[in-house]
Formats: sequence, structure tokens, C-alpha cells
Amino acid sequence: MAATIIDGKAFAAGVRGQVAAGVAALKAGHGIVPGLAVVLVGEDPASEVYVAHKHQATLEVGMRSFEHKLAADTPEADLFALIDRLNADPEVHGILCQFPVPDHLSERRTVARIDPAKDVDGLSVTNAGLLATGERALVSCTPLGCLMLLRDQLGSLSGKEAVVIGRSNLFGKPMAQLLLQENCTVTIAHSRTTNLPEVCARADILVAAVGRAEMVRGDWVKPGATVIDVGITRVPHPQTPGKTRLIGDVHFESAVAVAGAITPVPGGVGPMTIACLLANTLTACCRAHGLPEPEGLTV
Amino acid sequence: MAATIIDGKAFAAGVRGQVAAGVAALKAGHGIVPGLAVVLVGEDPASEVYVAHKHQATLEVGMRSFEHKLAADTPEADLFALIDRLNADPEVHGILCQFPVPDHLSERRTVARIDPAKDVDGLSVTNAGLLATGERALVSCTPLGCLMLLRDQLGSLSGKEAVVIGRSNLFGKPMAQLLLQENCTVTIAHSRTTNLPEVCARADILVAAVGRAEMVRGDWVKPGATVIDVGITRVPHPQTPGKTRLIGDVHFESAVAVAGAITPVPGGVGPMTIACLLANTLTACCRAHGLPEPEGLTV
Ligand SMILES: NC(=O)c1ccc[n+]([C@@H]2O[C@H](COP(=O)([O-])OP(=O)(O)OC[C@H]3O[C@@H](n4cnc5c(N)ncnc54)[C@H](OP(=O)(O)O)[C@@H]3O)[C@@H](O)[C@H]2O)c1
Ligand SMILES: NC(=O)c1ccc[n+]([C@@H]2O[C@H](COP(=O)([O-])OP(=O)(O)OC[C@H]3O[C@@H](n4cnc5c(N)ncnc54)[C@H](OP(=O)(O)O)[C@@H]3O)[C@@H](O)[C@H]2O)c1
Repeated sequence: MAATIIDGKAFAAGVRGQVAAGVAALKAGHGIVPGLAVVLVGEDPASEVYVAHKHQATLEVGMRSFEHKLAADTPEADLFALIDRLNADPEVHGILCQFPVPDHLSERRTVARIDPAKDVDGLSVTNAGLLATGERALVSCTPLGCLMLLRDQLGSLSGKEAVVIGRSNLFGKPMAQLLLQENCTVTIAHSRTTNLPEVCARADILVAAVGRAEMVRGDWVKPGATVIDVGITRVPHPQTPGKTRLIGDVHFESAVAVAGAITPVPGGVGPMTIACLLANTLTACCRAHGLPEPEGLTV
Repeated sequence: MAATIIDGKAFAAGVRGQVAAGVAALKAGHGIVPGLAVVLVGEDPASEVYVAHKHQATLEVGMRSFEHKLAADTPEADLFALIDRLNADPEVHGILCQFPVPDHLSERRTVARIDPAKDVDGLSVTNAGLLATGERALVSCTPLGCLMLLRDQLGSLSGKEAVVIGRSNLFGKPMAQLLLQENCTVTIAHSRTTNLPEVCARADILVAAVGRAEMVRGDWVKPGATVIDVGITRVPHPQTPGKTRLIGDVHFESAVAVAGAITPVPGGVGPMTIACLLANTLTACCRAHGLPEPEGLTV
């Protein structure tokens, strides 16, 4: 029996709908409009596309969107002055700086400058610490999205064996923390893992976030497991010269025959990231006003 | 072949010697004396014994020791005023509040009040976040001590399968982070883990921090594995009525026959905790003065 193919696009649309409803309720009940500020330094074309998407999505759910585009040679002091203003601005509930930043700037220092209560990317040391100690954090968007998909697919995750391949601060580590909070037995694997196929084969929940196209083969997957493919690699399109397509970390054809459920690439995890950015902005806004958290959109 | 029995008492004495040498070098080279402040609220007899031990050990390595004993009914504001003074005091490089505190106080709020740079217990959200994101943290003393024992026993830990049983903020979670930093493939197990014997049997490095006497049996241990027994349970002494003895989480007799190396209880992990508290205080002092970190005593 072939696996359920998890429709991340449809699920993300549902999340956006929930966020839009939450925003509408805030407006109607309290006259509050959540606002997201996005800062882009320089003219990286991929970053410009991402920022435009975020802007559009923010407006669609009824939030305010503030775009700040700075020249590539903006001194750190000017960037920080902008972040300080956004930190102090009561109309701004979420702030994100689109990475990468030009070489003279530091991602670490930039993230550290953002008020942790507005750090809707969940990248700050404070939010990592809150997540690690089980306190109320803002959680990195992609792992939050993966958790939503898993809860929707499996209900309770308690007692399941979860394996996360990848240990980045952006994805792997927060994903492992979230699965631990859900009472999974969690294994974190990475490039130094010696017996990766064997480690993966234990997993009831297998999350791959490496960035190596089709690394995870069907025979690494435990029959019936839920497979979440986070990896994205862009390769030349096989039929159309000049075009590209996206490939996940999982070899879909072989894995789909074994797994219980699996996310495709594209259309699986990808669409959840922006949806969770909007969810985090709504969450940050509710917390800033001492209002109850939006249901089902936080951890 | 029976396992190597790891002599934590001897190793801890070595660490204290290294700390004492570091302290002597700081005095001679820079006229700086590291200082540790210990705050005790109330009169819990066990806590008084711990605090007295720490005081003695601090003096023995040539550091200053500042003891602050507050009445059990001290208001939070007074405790915080003391912590603020200690945070500001340049002669104090490490601050710890002995837990438990009386019910009207909060451990979480107390830890949050301590300057993270002086939080030598490594319990603050900031230090958890620094550890989680791979930045320079002060690390909880017992996991730091376990890591020192493991490095001494095994050299490089890279690629080894490590299993940590227990996921407390005090021990399990920071231990898992440290092992991940050492490039182990790390599994975290806990009370909701369904197949604990099987999970343990994979481990090249098995760390048990549960608090259930002799829960881990020899047949859960992979032949040749290194077993670190953190658990402490106090039970009535079998021969001497009225006396007690300490039992670990590992059933020593059966495990010692299978393991490659194992820590006993007592005399294994236990003595490392105070040694690492002294190491952390020296580290905090060096960092406060912009001096190089003491070698072999940090992560
Ligand atoms: N919106 C989205 O859909 C979204 C969001 C985030 C990320 N992603 C994608 O997810 C992937 C990972 O992202 P990231 O930011 O976490 O990447 P990253 O920072 O490059 O981390 C990659 C991780 O994979 C591990 N790794 C590398 N080679 C490996 C191997 N042969 N076997 C096992 N593990 C290996 C690395 O281990 P070491 O730590 O040992 O080097 C590292 O922990 C990328 O393809 C990225 O595009 C997608
Ligand atoms: N200086 C030292 O030598 C030192 C220092 C620190 C701790 N310790 C000792 O180490 C032990 C643990 O300390 P702690 O502060 O981490 O304790 P804790 O906060 O009580 O945590 C115990 C952990 O064990 C897990 N657990 C409970 N029952 C279990 C079971 N049947 N199977 C698997 N896991 C189980 C719990 O899981 P859940 O999270 O699911 O509840 C929890 O994560 C204690 O005995 C303590 O005295 C010694």
C-alpha cells in the first residue's frame, strides 16, 4: 500500500486561513492589527523574491506589512538603528531580517539586536534557550510547520521514535526540541553519523534536513513511518533546458512505497514556512497585548 | 573481561588541581582572585551541607568564597537586591543560589536574575540558548563533568552513538547538547520512551540520569560501551540500621560484566560536580577579564 502523500500546500492554506480569522478577531474585538516588518539589506534576487512573497502573504491575512530595503553597503550602525526603531514601534509585532546579509554584517549580531519577543524567525539565543528549557518561545518557522503536519497526520506523537537528520540552529536543533516536547524518543543524526541508514530505519518519524538530493533511500525507511522531507536542492530540469526543479533529501519513488505518509518536494514542507511566519506574528501580537495565544498555531 | 571502573574521585581531584593552578597563575600574572558567591535561603540541612562543601572546596583552590545565608522568609525583593549587588560586584565572578528555595520564591525567576556571565550553574535561559546554538556558554556542572570523564576515557567521541536517559534542564538536555557538539549521534530517552532496553542497547555511550535505583540492567548495555551513571537514590543501608547508602541508576554488578568502562556510585560522577563548579568560576573570571579560557576545563 503506497503512502499517504501529505499535502503541505493545502495544509498551509488552512493555517493561513486560521491566522486570517485570528487577525480578524483581534481587529473586531480589540482594534489591534498585527504587523510584520521585513528588513532586506542589498539586492540579492532570490531574497527579493522571498521578501515579496512574505509581503503579499502578510497583507492577505489582514496584517500590516512594513518593508525596509537598505543599500548593500549600509553600515551596521544604521541597520541597528532601524532594528531599534522597529523594536520600539508598537505597531510592529514581528521583525525579520532576510538572510544572507552582505559580508560586512553579521547574522548573529543582527538577530541578537532584535527584541526576542518580536523575533518571529525564532533565531535568537533567547528563543533557543526558552525552547530548550521548555518555556514559552517563538519557534523557528520551518520546524514549527513540520510539527503541525506531524500532529495533523499522527495525533499524539508520544513514545514514537523520531530521527532528525541535520542539526542546524535554523532547523535540526529546534525540530529535535519540539519532538522531545511531544514526548518522542529523539535521535539527532548529522554528517558524522556513521550508520545513517540503520539509524533512519528505527524511525517512526523521519525528518530529513540536509540539502543532499535523494540521499535517503526507500530501504532506509521503516515500513509505515511518517517521512518529512525538508531538504531542497535545485537541479537542472531533465526535460526543459534552462529551467530548474527542486529535489528533496528523500528519494521519493522508493520511499513512497514503504512509508506510511510522506511530504513531497515541492508542495510538502515548503509552503508551511511562510504560513508559520504569519502564525508567529499573530502569536507575538497576542502576547504583546496579554491576550490568549491563537489556538493550534503555537507549541 | 570486566569493565574499567572510572575513578571520578581521582579525576575530580585532578580537575581541582588544574583549577588551583589556574587560580595561582591568575594571581601571579594579573593580581586577580576569582570569587564565588553562594546564596542559601532557609535552613534545609542537606543544603547547608552542600553549601559548606562548596565553601571549603572554593577556598582550597585559592578562590574567594562569599557565603550569603538568608532567612527562610526573605522576601523576593531582598533576595533580588542581594543578587543585583553580587552581579555588580567585580570581586564576584560566579553566583549560585542553592536550590530548593522556600515555596514563596521561584527558582526560575531567581536564576533569571543572575547575570548569565556569572551563572556558574549554567541554569539560565541565556546559557541554555548559548549552548543550544553552539556559542560560548557556562554549562551546567554535572553534564560538563560527565563530558570530561568521557573525553578522558574515549578521546574523540565523534561518530559514537550516545543515549541519554533523562531530559531535565539541569542534566539531560545539556548533556545531550554537549554530546552533539562532540559529534555523537545522540538519542534522548525519558519516561515516555517505549522500548528503553532496546534503545540503551544501541549506545556506545550510555548516560543514565533518572533517579530510579538500578533501573538499567546489564543486558541493556552494549558490550564494550562506556556507562555513565548519574542517578543517585538514597536507600537504607542493608547491614547497618539507621544508616543509608547511595545507589545509582545502573545495576552495577550486571553492567560491569558487559561494559567497557563504567562509573560507580558513589565515587563516579558525583565528585565531578563541585570540581566543575570551580572550573566554571575560573572560566567566568577569565572571560570577565578578557583572558584566555583555562585549558581543558571548558567546552
Ligand atoms: N522552507 C523550507 O522548506 C526550508 C527551510 C529550512 C531549510 N530547508 C532546507 O533544508 C535543508 C537543510 O537546511 P539547514 O539550514 O538545516 O542546512 P545546514 O545548516 O546546511 O545543515 C545541514 C545539516 O545536514 C547535515 N549533513 C550534511 N551532510 C550530511 C550527510 N551526508 N549525512 C547526514 N547529515 C548530513 C549537516 O551535518 P554537520 O552539522 O555535521 O555539518 C548539518 O547538520 C536545506 O536543503 C535547506 O534548503 C528548507
Ligand atoms: N551531582 C550529581 O551527581 C548529580 C547531579 C544532578 C543529578 N543527579 C541525579 O541524577 C538523577 C536525575 O536528576 P535530574 O535532576 O535530571 O532529575 P529529574 O529532573 O527528576 O529528571 C529525571 C528524568 O528521568 C526521566 N525518567 C523518569 N522515569 C523514567 C523511566 N522509568 N524511564 C526512563 N526515564 C525516566 C524523566 O522523564 P520525563 O521527563 O518524561 O518525566 C526525567 O526526564 C537524580 O537521581 C539526581 O539525584 C546527580
